[in-house]
Amino acid sequence: MTKRVGIIGAGPSGLAALRAFESARKKGAEIPEIVCFEKQADWGGLWNYTWRTGLDECGEPVHGSMYRFLWSNGPKECLEFADYSFEEHFGREIPSYPPRAVLYDYITGRISKGNLRDYIRFRTPVRGVTWDGRTAKFTVTVEDLEKKHVYTEVFDDVIVASGHFSVPNVPSFPGFNNFPGRVLHAHDFRDANEFKDKDLLMIGSSYSAEDIGTQCFKYGARSVTFSCRGKPMGYDWPEGFHKRPLLERVEGNTAYFIDGSTKNVDAIILCTGYRHHFPFLPDSLRLETNNRLYPLDLYKGVCWIKNPHLFYLGMQDQYYTFNMFDAQAWFARDVIMDRIHLPPAADMTADTLEWRAREEEASTPYEEIDFQTDYVRDLISLTDYPPFDLDHVAQSFKDWKHDKVENIMTYRDKSYVSALTGKLAPAHHTPWMEAMDDSLEAFLKQ
Amino acid sequence: MTKRVGIIGAGPSGLAALRAFESARKKGAEIPEIVCFEKQADWGGLWNYTWRTGLDECGEPVHGSMYRFLWSNGPKECLEFADYSFEEHFGREIPSYPPRAVLYDYITGRISKGNLRDYIRFRTPVRGVTWDGRTAKFTVTVEDLEKKHVYTEVFDDVIVASGHFSVPNVPSFPGFNNFPGRVLHAHDFRDANEFKDKDLLMIGSSYSAEDIGTQCFKYGARSVTFSCRGKPMGYDWPEGFHKRPLLERVEGNTAYFIDGSTKNVDAIILCTGYRHHFPFLPDSLRLETNNRLYPLDLYKGVCWIKNPHLFYLGMQDQYYTFNMFDAQAWFARDVIMDRIHLPPAADMTADTLEWRAREEEASTPYEEIDFQTDYVRDLISLTDYPPFDLDHVAQSFKDWKHDKVENIMTYRDKSYVSALTGKLAPAHHTPWMEAMDDSLEAFLKQ
Repeated sequence: MTKRVGIIGAGPSGLAALRAFESARKKGAEIPEIVCFEKQADWGGLWNYTWRTGLDECGEPVHGSMYRFLWSNGPKECLEFADYSFEEHFGREIPSYPPRAVLYDYITGRISKGNLRDYIRFRTPVRGVTWDGRTAKFTVTVEDLEKKHVYTEVFDDVIVASGHFSVPNVPSFPGFNNFPGRVLHAHDFRDANEFKDKDLLMIGSSYSAEDIGTQCFKYGARSVTFSCRGKPMGYDWPEGFHKRPLLERVEGNTAYFIDGSTKNVDAIILCTGYRHHFPFLPDSLRLETNNRLYPLDLYKGVCWIKNPHLFYLGMQDQYYTFNMFDAQAWFARDVIMDRIHLPPAADMTADTLEWRAREEEASTPYEEIDFQTDYVRDLISLTDYPPFDLDHVAQSFKDWKHDKVENIMTYRDKSYVSALTGKLAPAHHTPWMEAMDDSLEAFLKQ
Repeated sequence: MTKRVGIIGAGPSGLAALRAFESARKKGAEIPEIVCFEKQADWGGLWNYTWRTGLDECGEPVHGSMYRFLWSNGPKECLEFADYSFEEHFGREIPSYPPRAVLYDYITGRISKGNLRDYIRFRTPVRGVTWDGRTAKFTVTVEDLEKKHVYTEVFDDVIVASGHFSVPNVPSFPGFNNFPGRVLHAHDFRDANEFKDKDLLMIGSSYSAEDIGTQCFKYGARSVTFSCRGKPMGYDWPEGFHKRPLLERVEGNTAYFIDGSTKNVDAIILCTGYRHHFPFLPDSLRLETNNRLYPLDLYKGVCWIKNPHLFYLGMQDQYYTFNMFDAQAWFARDVIMDRIHLPPAADMTADTLEWRAREEEASTPYEEIDFQTDYVRDLISLTDYPPFDLDHVAQSFKDWKHDKVENIMTYRDKSYVSALTGKLAPAHHTPWMEAMDDSLEAFLKQ
């Protein structure tokens, strides 16, 4: 009997899995029967922008964390699919930092070539997964939101590709209950125009704080104050930005910081990260990890060691994104199709502990980039995913890190060389700080 | 063996169920073993205010729909528990329209007298419920969010008391994706100060629109425009309010209405109601209804006819609230404790259809009030819930309706007579429009 594989989520990771099986099928292999369950009405995961926040039109938690005017915060050359270049998709080279709509077009463009949509059941969130050791099968309970019908299906293998940048980590601070303005997590941020002429407080020091802070400044915020627990971001911010240590409390409109300083603010944006959250999984199948480069319990970062019929894609903290998801998806596919035979559990655990030790040795961003490069290289060596010049991509990541430190407000005006085509990206027609229109049409205009 | 009863939710309805069983126990009855599962960290349901919106600190959808400066929009004399007067709780009569914190104190005060907290497992959302016809038991799957532990328990009866004002109904309109300001549902509204000096558009014509509109006006919104599909609210709004037909689309900041008129607005609040949403229930157990006075499939508005071991509390549209939940909880308790024997399913269905026919005859608010009064009266006649003068309460509802039409901005300054104590509530020390502090302390100050 043909194996049945259930994929949870049709974002970049879930689509990578579909593409991996499709690639094998096109090469003549007999592939398993595949069903991909997607909560949203369309594919693309986080890249499928919505104005909605909180709960969606079906009462489900909104998956999207993206906002208007979001431009890639890393060079597109670092995330390029090895089997589908930007040049192939757009018919020419495009600048290195595209806005969201352009990347969405690229991701979904690759997938639209096949009949991959037929594998996906949209508007179908997964409610529960159980494993029956006797039959060695998973039972997956889902709800068809349009028919309001709950049903179950049985699978030999399950791939969890539901992402980990959708469920916010939301701390509270004394005084939030009475703060006379909006307090929101970055997950619910949608439009910088809302904060024009406002004094903004951002809690956090990672990508969300840096990017939403610069967006809001670009669209007219009066001031942006970054408050964080640890080391502040190492950027030279222009006038209008302020750095403070961690917030202690708010009283009325006034924020009090742990160094005793204060600042009056109109809105507070919590850029405090996301949680790995799998409300549909039982304890025995559920990954528990913080956001880091090498979560444990996953052989090759993919196979759930305690039950190697379960796979996770994209659960790592990420320098590499789309191409890493691909590398993982190709690996999972080959395990499922018995092309790769897993070693005994003890050996798999030992392997992950070795990687974990190496992860812990990496203390600078450059070392982290090298670590994840090696991880991706290892994965790619094990499957027929098209190899590409990973050292070149690693160098681009390092250049990007350097460019950001050089000028956090203008790094998106730089160009990088594609590892696939060897070509340098053209400059964009407008410097990022002046590019107010983030539509695909405006970006591609020549 | 002792029966086991699972209660889903510890808001006003779930607490009513606990109180019902406790009341029987205090009178010497042997009561079933009871477990109440509550998603939040504390009891009180919607009345447990939080600044949070979207997903909470555990990644669960925020239950709360209440906001700062929310005062009761109906007289407290209409919702008074028959077994616990406001006078008993506060030691004296208090004004008729208390702010949220005062009602929260009243609801939880009644419950705090016993050891009812011991029955409740907090931070424990229900993930799934299944019924096994062979054993005639429910299996309830829950997650202990603190221990991150998913487990199941078996029950003879289940009471669904999870509310129906937590999951918003959120329509979209063309242009929302590019609206340069905040678009939110009333569920996510928290603080009127955010909208000071703003031009607000409110979609909807029911309680949320009316109340959030007046709140925002009270706290300094520049203008409030109501847009709705049907008949506009029949109130005389002061200067600064505008009435429009349904929104057609937005372009930039400009709202276009179906009559061709336009209005520039800074924020849009969707006061478009809530959904009955039970993602943890299978088709066979799940109530499907819009928000109305008499949903079908529930005998006496409480017992799930297709499986009379399942009960729903508070699923009706409501004039009556806390005391109606009590009446329902006492009825459910008596069915579970075999004090009330249910008729055959066909007779139960026939009974609901009779009530439904009467509901459909009621075409004015006064007739609706009479209908729900009769419904509550019928329930109370079947149990030992303390009878009270329902005709008096019905008249208070009618007076309230009249007072609102007379002046929507000042109706909260009126006083009503308690059906329990026969006493007229004292006037509040400050007219509502000038009462900016909604704390319990400020309200109770003499």
